[in-house]
Amino acid sequence: MPTPADRISESSMTDLWNVWFTELHRRRAGLTIKIKQLLYTGKSPYQRIDVLDTYAFGRMLVLYGSIMVTEKDEFVYHEMLAHVPLFAHPKPRKVLIIGGGDGGTLREVMRHKQVRATMVEIDEAVVQTSQKYLPTIGTAFKNPRAQVLFEDGERWLARCKEKFDVILVDASDPVGPAEVLFQKPFHQQVARCLAPGGIFVTQSESPFFHQKTLSGIQRNLREIFKVVRPYTAAIPTYPSGFWSFTLCSDTTDPVARFKESRVKAAGFKLKYYNAGIHRACFALPSFMLEDGPDLGL
Amino acid sequence: MPTPADRISESSMTDLWNVWFTELHRRRAGLTIKIKQLLYTGKSPYQRIDVLDTYAFGRMLVLYGSIMVTEKDEFVYHEMLAHVPLFAHPKPRKVLIIGGGDGGTLREVMRHKQVRATMVEIDEAVVQTSQKYLPTIGTAFKNPRAQVLFEDGERWLARCKEKFDVILVDASDPVGPAEVLFQKPFHQQVARCLAPGGIFVTQSESPFFHQKTLSGIQRNLREIFKVVRPYTAAIPTYPSGFWSFTLCSDTTDPVARFKESRVKAAGFKLKYYNAGIHRACFALPSFMLEDGPDLGL
Repeated sequence: MPTPADRISESSMTDLWNVWFTELHRRRAGLTIKIKQLLYTGKSPYQRIDVLDTYAFGRMLVLYGSIMVTEKDEFVYHEMLAHVPLFAHPKPRKVLIIGGGDGGTLREVMRHKQVRATMVEIDEAVVQTSQKYLPTIGTAFKNPRAQVLFEDGERWLARCKEKFDVILVDASDPVGPAEVLFQKPFHQQVARCLAPGGIFVTQSESPFFHQKTLSGIQRNLREIFKVVRPYTAAIPTYPSGFWSFTLCSDTTDPVARFKESRVKAAGFKLKYYNAGIHRACFALPSFMLEDGPDLGL
Repeated sequence: MPTPADRISESSMTDLWNVWFTELHRRRAGLTIKIKQLLYTGKSPYQRIDVLDTYAFGRMLVLYGSIMVTEKDEFVYHEMLAHVPLFAHPKPRKVLIIGGGDGGTLREVMRHKQVRATMVEIDEAVVQTSQKYLPTIGTAFKNPRAQVLFEDGERWLARCKEKFDVILVDASDPVGPAEVLFQKPFHQQVARCLAPGGIFVTQSESPFFHQKTLSGIQRNLREIFKVVRPYTAAIPTYPSGFWSFTLCSDTTDPVARFKESRVKAAGFKLKYYNAGIHRACFALPSFMLEDGPDLGL
């Protein structure tokens, strides 16, 4: 005699699996995503780590409840964090990545064949999880031009005696383990470790939802760097779908020094970044300007 | 003796009112918004109309289940639909708006003091509802330079003997009453009613979620107009948070003919549009280019 479970067909089991992941901004609005399968849940010394398979965006890495990357739209964030400074700098050779445990930023940096990179990630579990469950993102960890260290990025940088042409902060939100990476003492260490003409970029949250956080980050950075240029990109799975990065340097203007010919010569096949986007991404909506209105979002 | 209802305090009544509006893309991902109050639900001959008050975005107009505008972020859509063509055109005098029942596009068009506008909206109930519940959006219906007609925009245009410098299609999605406004016979009528050097702009859906719809619209438009230039804006409450418009003309390139001095002379206080954004919004991510990859979203 068949047990009740035997009578449940494969398709009805899938139909009944009606599970949604929801990431809210201030508990009042957010993104909701239907989940195909829970692939992994774990806890590192630093944070909770989840990998979910979704219908809309493919596999998705979630740290302490916030979406970090999804297979379908991670290209925007990683291309825009890496290629804007690497093409703004006339001759990048040494790159430092703080954070970036999923490996997407390292993958994009490694497309630049003349570059050697050091990546300092605090949480080895994020790298291991990403390599296992998101193999299209974490492709460059074994690249001989890349060195991956599992250390506290802030402490590592405070002791660092090297200089870098490009420093990228690929941090999660300014709560939890990444908080210090948004503060002035860290940014002073970054400035100390930049080679002449060097460029620093940090992700700097949603222009709509984190308007005050972003203007605070910029205010702090202007006390340290002469050139402070926010830029933006459209990222569907990040809060509000619109994201900011802030590029800093003492001497290198990212648009004035930009040579389209270098992008053509590199010959990358990218999905978001191109020479037109390089110039355009620094044009800011009026509400993002210093005298812009508070949107109250 | 107090009845049970008397014992419920005001604050606990609000706490228990845990109502969410969710707009899904292909039933698998979308935006979810906490609702403060249901202000209006009605049915016109054309569609279901709802007005909801939300915690995150203020009041929100919903047509057949899709968010049309919210008080907090409507400025992006309306500024970008109106001011890009009105500043791209060297001397706009006559403007036609098809749709736009909430009145936000008319409000932005009326900022240009040299312009007279005709608005043709199929559904009078949308205008009435907007004037009543969204008074900061529908501010220009009574402007003496504006004429508002309640007619089927497609039929009206087919009979129209006037010519316009700028024609704007402010339509809802290409399902329901607005479907014909995305099709070739309508676009041919638009072309017939453009004055020499005239500019046509239509909203053209999400570059991420409606990639095929957008490329289809562009393909059709290229059969009719010599200049076909999509542009983009970040709109948090539209699907994926990233939206496209398509600008068409026979002779007027929206960037080459653009004069920043006209924006300065107009002296508007806007929240999104500015001269830098005018040029930048036409730079497209690689996936939006003709040979771009299919994102599978």
